[in-house]
Amino acid sequence: MLTSPSDPIVFQRRESEARSYCRGFDAVFAKAAGSELIDADGNRYIDFLAGCSSLNYGHNDPDMKTALIDHIAGDGIAHGLDLHTDTKARFLAALETHILEPREMDHKVMFTGPTGANAVEAAMKLARKVTGRTNVISFTNGFHGVTMGALAATGNKYHRGGAGMTLNGVTRMPFDGYLGADFDTSTLLEKMLSDPSSGVDAPAAIILETVQGEGGLNAARPEWIRKVAALAKEHGALLIIDDIQAGCGRAGDFFSFDGMGITPDIITMAKSISGFGLPMALMLVRPEHDIFGPAEHNGTFRGNTHAFVTARIAIEKFWADDNFRDQLAEKERMIVAALAAIAEMVPGATLKGRGLMRGVDVGSGELASEICSRAYQEGLVIETSGPKDEVVKILAPITTPDTLLRKGLNLLLNAVYDSSVNIKIAAE
Amino acid sequence: MLTSPSDPIVFQRRESEARSYCRGFDAVFAKAAGSELIDADGNRYIDFLAGCSSLNYGHNDPDMKTALIDHIAGDGIAHGLDLHTDTKARFLAALETHILEPREMDHKVMFTGPTGANAVEAAMKLARKVTGRTNVISFTNGFHGVTMGALAATGNKYHRGGAGMTLNGVTRMPFDGYLGADFDTSTLLEKMLSDPSSGVDAPAAIILETVQGEGGLNAARPEWIRKVAALAKEHGALLIIDDIQAGCGRAGDFFSFDGMGITPDIITMAKSISGFGLPMALMLVRPEHDIFGPAEHNGTFRGNTHAFVTARIAIEKFWADDNFRDQLAEKERMIVAALAAIAEMVPGATLKGRGLMRGVDVGSGELASEICSRAYQEGLVIETSGPKDEVVKILAPITTPDTLLRKGLNLLLNAVYDSSVNIKIAAE
Amino acid sequence: MLTSPSDPIVFQRRESEARSYCRGFDAVFAKAAGSELIDADGNRYIDFLAGCSSLNYGHNDPDMKTALIDHIAGDGIAHGLDLHTDTKARFLAALETHILEPREMDHKVMFTGPTGANAVEAAMKLARKVTGRTNVISFTNGFHGVTMGALAATGNKYHRGGAGMTLNGVTRMPFDGYLGADFDTSTLLEKMLSDPSSGVDAPAAIILETVQGEGGLNAARPEWIRKVAALAKEHGALLIIDDIQAGCGRAGDFFSFDGMGITPDIITMAKSISGFGLPMALMLVRPEHDIFGPAEHNGTFRGNTHAFVTARIAIEKFWADDNFRDQLAEKERMIVAALAAIAEMVPGATLKGRGLMRGVDVGSGELASEICSRAYQEGLVIETSGPKDEVVKILAPITTPDTLLRKGLNLLLNAVYDSSVNIKIAAE
Amino acid sequence: MLTSPSDPIVFQRRESEARSYCRGFDAVFAKAAGSELIDADGNRYIDFLAGCSSLNYGHNDPDMKTALIDHIAGDGIAHGLDLHTDTKARFLAALETHILEPREMDHKVMFTGPTGANAVEAAMKLARKVTGRTNVISFTNGFHGVTMGALAATGNKYHRGGAGMTLNGVTRMPFDGYLGADFDTSTLLEKMLSDPSSGVDAPAAIILETVQGEGGLNAARPEWIRKVAALAKEHGALLIIDDIQAGCGRAGDFFSFDGMGITPDIITMAKSISGFGLPMALMLVRPEHDIFGPAEHNGTFRGNTHAFVTARIAIEKFWADDNFRDQLAEKERMIVAALAAIAEMVPGATLKGRGLMRGVDVGSGELASEICSRAYQEGLVIETSGPKDEVVKILAPITTPDTLLRKGLNLLLNAVYDSSVNIKIAAE
Repeated sequence: MLTSPSDPIVFQRRESEARSYCRGFDAVFAKAAGSELIDADGNRYIDFLAGCSSLNYGHNDPDMKTALIDHIAGDGIAHGLDLHTDTKARFLAALETHILEPREMDHKVMFTGPTGANAVEAAMKLARKVTGRTNVISFTNGFHGVTMGALAATGNKYHRGGAGMTLNGVTRMPFDGYLGADFDTSTLLEKMLSDPSSGVDAPAAIILETVQGEGGLNAARPEWIRKVAALAKEHGALLIIDDIQAGCGRAGDFFSFDGMGITPDIITMAKSISGFGLPMALMLVRPEHDIFGPAEHNGTFRGNTHAFVTARIAIEKFWADDNFRDQLAEKERMIVAALAAIAEMVPGATLKGRGLMRGVDVGSGELASEICSRAYQEGLVIETSGPKDEVVKILAPITTPDTLLRKGLNLLLNAVYDSSVNIKIAAE
Repeated sequence: MLTSPSDPIVFQRRESEARSYCRGFDAVFAKAAGSELIDADGNRYIDFLAGCSSLNYGHNDPDMKTALIDHIAGDGIAHGLDLHTDTKARFLAALETHILEPREMDHKVMFTGPTGANAVEAAMKLARKVTGRTNVISFTNGFHGVTMGALAATGNKYHRGGAGMTLNGVTRMPFDGYLGADFDTSTLLEKMLSDPSSGVDAPAAIILETVQGEGGLNAARPEWIRKVAALAKEHGALLIIDDIQAGCGRAGDFFSFDGMGITPDIITMAKSISGFGLPMALMLVRPEHDIFGPAEHNGTFRGNTHAFVTARIAIEKFWADDNFRDQLAEKERMIVAALAAIAEMVPGATLKGRGLMRGVDVGSGELASEICSRAYQEGLVIETSGPKDEVVKILAPITTPDTLLRKGLNLLLNAVYDSSVNIKIAAE
Repeated sequence: MLTSPSDPIVFQRRESEARSYCRGFDAVFAKAAGSELIDADGNRYIDFLAGCSSLNYGHNDPDMKTALIDHIAGDGIAHGLDLHTDTKARFLAALETHILEPREMDHKVMFTGPTGANAVEAAMKLARKVTGRTNVISFTNGFHGVTMGALAATGNKYHRGGAGMTLNGVTRMPFDGYLGADFDTSTLLEKMLSDPSSGVDAPAAIILETVQGEGGLNAARPEWIRKVAALAKEHGALLIIDDIQAGCGRAGDFFSFDGMGITPDIITMAKSISGFGLPMALMLVRPEHDIFGPAEHNGTFRGNTHAFVTARIAIEKFWADDNFRDQLAEKERMIVAALAAIAEMVPGATLKGRGLMRGVDVGSGELASEICSRAYQEGLVIETSGPKDEVVKILAPITTPDTLLRKGLNLLLNAVYDSSVNIKIAAE
Repeated sequence: MLTSPSDPIVFQRRESEARSYCRGFDAVFAKAAGSELIDADGNRYIDFLAGCSSLNYGHNDPDMKTALIDHIAGDGIAHGLDLHTDTKARFLAALETHILEPREMDHKVMFTGPTGANAVEAAMKLARKVTGRTNVISFTNGFHGVTMGALAATGNKYHRGGAGMTLNGVTRMPFDGYLGADFDTSTLLEKMLSDPSSGVDAPAAIILETVQGEGGLNAARPEWIRKVAALAKEHGALLIIDDIQAGCGRAGDFFSFDGMGITPDIITMAKSISGFGLPMALMLVRPEHDIFGPAEHNGTFRGNTHAFVTARIAIEKFWADDNFRDQLAEKERMIVAALAAIAEMVPGATLKGRGLMRGVDVGSGELASEICSRAYQEGLVIETSGPKDEVVKILAPITTPDTLLRKGLNLLLNAVYDSSVNIKIAAE
């Protein structure tokens, strides 16, 4: 229970104006389990935000929780730098056994600082070092983090404006579908890369999300991704798949590119990789590109050993066989059906996304915000995305039980219904 | 093939060549408590590295451990984005009550991504945004992280080379003592800032560590720091104190600049701020500069709630009164005495550092490495620093009991003794 | 006549390897008049290169020549910095009376250093200063010079490679027709500028050549240019027309954009602006953007007074009424007819260009080079352009008498005929 | 007298606000000969500005004038791209015979665009290409031009501000004497270059003026220059001497570094290299560094053949033997004596410069401006330099006859006398 000195007023008094989610979801949260958040007054909320896809397996998964408590209770290492620990070895072994080997991936694992941005920074630096080139190609509406290197690859104007200076070293190309279904944007990339007078310098890397989480749930077609992968190879650029948000099951399989027939040179992972929401990030890199010297890219917290504990459990529990993946398909169908119903209610609305990162573009940021706000009043935490926040985005834990998922979707449907009514009235 | 799941072979097979500390300290560590590490075979090591000063209060502090286990067991929030949580409120209140208010500091707290580099990135971005200027002045031998923005401010050639491209936006100035005791380097800074034709653009910020941890334990004199602070103010630049390594008691008080009579515009904290070695970072910023919009600088893991739990305990346990600080002075004397003894053994050696971040410059990286290597053979984990790794650096937990500290210092003395003998023989 | 010490061997001995045209046209030239060059041995060459369009009015125009000799003989100023001179006043008055006023252009004239690159540098700097933005949008295959600011806007890989470092501050967009006739590239520009998450920062300027001289004689359609001009205005960017090569009559009127209904914010002029091939460059800028302070952008040779003498004559002689412009249309028809004949001889060849900057894309750089080489053997100086040097480019003085023009075109036709035969034989 | 259409009002109406010298020297100039300017009303002015050292041999030197008129009258080439011309051959031969060979210099000559800035751009680009490094070290108060590459190396805040964006790729070091006579600034350069953690990246080049013309006539000591040259060599950087203003006799010999025992890797020349004030620039480069490919760095006006005519005469007339150089020493003595007299009149004033680029620092820009303004009223054109315009700078043609030189110096003395009186009165 909250008493002084943990009065929420302390946030106004001492926390930076940069705080954000707490403005839309103003409860003081105290507990969480599975797909539910509980505030200090005991109110329960269904969580369709899931730490922006950092909690794909829900809050406080009981197996991870037990293992983590055991680890701490037994004086397991908390902070391990990049020393060898048995905990890290077991995580690596699990990753190798259940994820990499079945996919015939020979990638090395580089533990960067435990944030997605850091993994992206490491990936971009490494690609430049490997190729001796500077230019990195990224795409419209891409989001890769807000530290200076990653921010250069991020499209969002608001975040770019935070830099306070010019961001260099990145060329922007239109993502799949950017100019509508009739124009294959990879033709422009192809022409520019092969034209010695295009002004697009030979790239060190092409970086992309297969589904743009922050950019509005734009899902690239596999054939477009394969084309981009082929262009990267042809032009000596490394292909970096930023799987920070779309990975770890979110798009329907462990990697968002599984089954597409591509082998990225580098894959960045963060968010749900720890399984428990703990800070952890890594970069998978093909052995021939694994050329950073010892600590050439480093970071104090690259050995978050608590996260290694839970990350191992997450892999062993969910990815040791195909059962979990197969269940995801059913949840996907439920979500799509609900979103289709929403789209029917909002004229011009379109479905977005892939796998379990799905949403509906309702045409305006105002409407999307109203929907989320109404949903929150009824106990559903859900957010918008997209360049103008016009997409209502479902990022429910992919472990959400069907009944809870259905309940959350119903809350959302109601919120849309109420919002649509108001908008129509206002419009008349 | 994996047998014992902690087979170290998995590291060779799957971990990136960027791994570093594990090359010098090749044990597979399994447990840790206080100032000791225990490997998988049960061998004990005294830890004079302390996660590079991320474990100032030692490993698995019992009070923090209990609180953290209780939090997890009770389904406390793990990953909180920047939502309000009771846990964060209690941390903020403790920080306010025990740290900020006693120092009459009105700073706001911005939780950045949980790495020091991220805090530095946020600080540099904010300073540029506040001032509308690009140029940040940093110092020779400074280390501020390896993401692209922070790396521009970092001096180390090896780390800078990892960028694969030119690092912009930073002007380098000589740190205090850089040209010897007779030349006050602040005179150059002063001249360049006041000369409209110096070519040094008006700075957004001046960033510095009061003691350069990675750069060789160079401790700036308080009067030099005050001069730099005054120049920053005079020229409209923000003063950023990077207290990531020197803060949290390491230099003898909570902040490394305590008692110097300066009020930094921004202070970056990480490493030991969580108390337990968990990833956590923050930036303290004067209210008038707290102008980032909501999430303008963001990061998925900016709400590592486990870390808030332990960070609060750390403050309440160690900084609620002056007792702990007073004990530090005694440990400092023990360390200085041991280092003085070492300096007597190594011709030309000089003492470096301040507070409990102390070392001895033994004149060559080879000798320093040999000393550390010998110490490790005897069960002491200790590292070098400095531009040529020529400084043997003691970063023991500042809570290390006297007997253990003395034992560690003796191991170090023996290692120096053995190394010196060899070197003399080799020289003859 | 050449004797020692002016032996051409001196070029091999002392001139940099950066020398270029002299490799393809290896005569030692001594004299020139009208559209003809004469070498040291008295051989005559028809000049279809015309100093890369710097000699639109031919060599040593008799009226300019007389005026220049009179000026020099009378101790007229040679080097005038940016002092007032009667010579400059008379040039400005002629420009105002015959060029600006008839077009209702209120532009101010800024004399930059006497190179096109310098005018482009000044234009880009000014646009950034006016808007407080950094990003300049330029186009595929654009050429704007090779100093660092201008080079960033230049597309050619070979020239960009000369920089030895990354070129910043420019976003590249596809020029009109870049992806074929069916795709209007301005739709991409429009989408990216209006999308807050495109990653294309708000532009300070959009810079373009209406006909890309070095880029392969790509002529943008007026409606595309109007669209780009409208987008610039809508998004607060300055429209810079780089008329260095296409201006001064080359495209059929004084400015290459005459008659298109646009008013560029800035126009860069060089090459033929002096009329006589003397170094001179200037920037026309709308008064509201004329915000450089005194000498904020400067250059020792911005007052090349010899050039002001001839530049005034050029305007008064050729542009005081419509006669000259009307004659250009007839020459254009002759050139187009000859190029059409060439295109018939080379399978797949296409006509390029507009006005009197015309060429034929023969499909390969090898063939184009062979054609130019054969033409030179017969006394015609003509060059290639385009990303792969695949366009044979006619830049004859626009004053070339019809008989000489016809003679030159016939030489070119013969060269193509001979080259085509060889190529066919080789192919069999 | 001016009448339409050369009414000076046209300058206000149509010339950019960037115009500068004409604000201080507001006459409309019409003729010039030797060291005198004549305005449209026939008033004569002694020229101690000399086109900012572009007219070292005075205006309209009769021999150059005759040769140039002959060249033009005979239809000599005006604009020659980089074709071979007999005129260029003869210039190269003269340069080789009278300048390079006597100094045992094996440098190649690269004709860049005809501005000093362009030569500097070429030099910086080439150094980066040769070394594969980005960083160029330049010095406080250096001036190297205002195009983006050169501007990065220029110290002046006002000029840098014109860029409208951040200038990259240059590290600034203190010039000789920057912190007074007691501190040798090369020790800082030496320390920073040899310290792997200084944050100063390995340099591609070190660029400097031996006497900083715009920066306040700071003359580096030969021993300091030799030290810098040695450091460049030791650290694999090219030494670029920017001799644009100090060369061509201005500092007392053809090159400003003659007699110092150094061999620069690159020398940039412009301003007086044509002898007649015509736009011309070149770069001298050691053969092993002459690695630009054909036209990799280019420029339309790199073959200003009129300038080659006069440039050859200048060399043959003034530098074929030692007579001219010996005369300079006498003029230097006259100037120094006058400046010493001035310094006696102005408390705290100090003499600046070397050779025939001399001045006096009168302690304030206001006083220096007043002196120049008063001098102009009496018929002497003279300018200030230095970071605060505090240096009255004499750049008289180095061919100025003694009587005229004396007359000019007397006008200056009177101007100082009158200004000093006023200042004293104001001060009382």
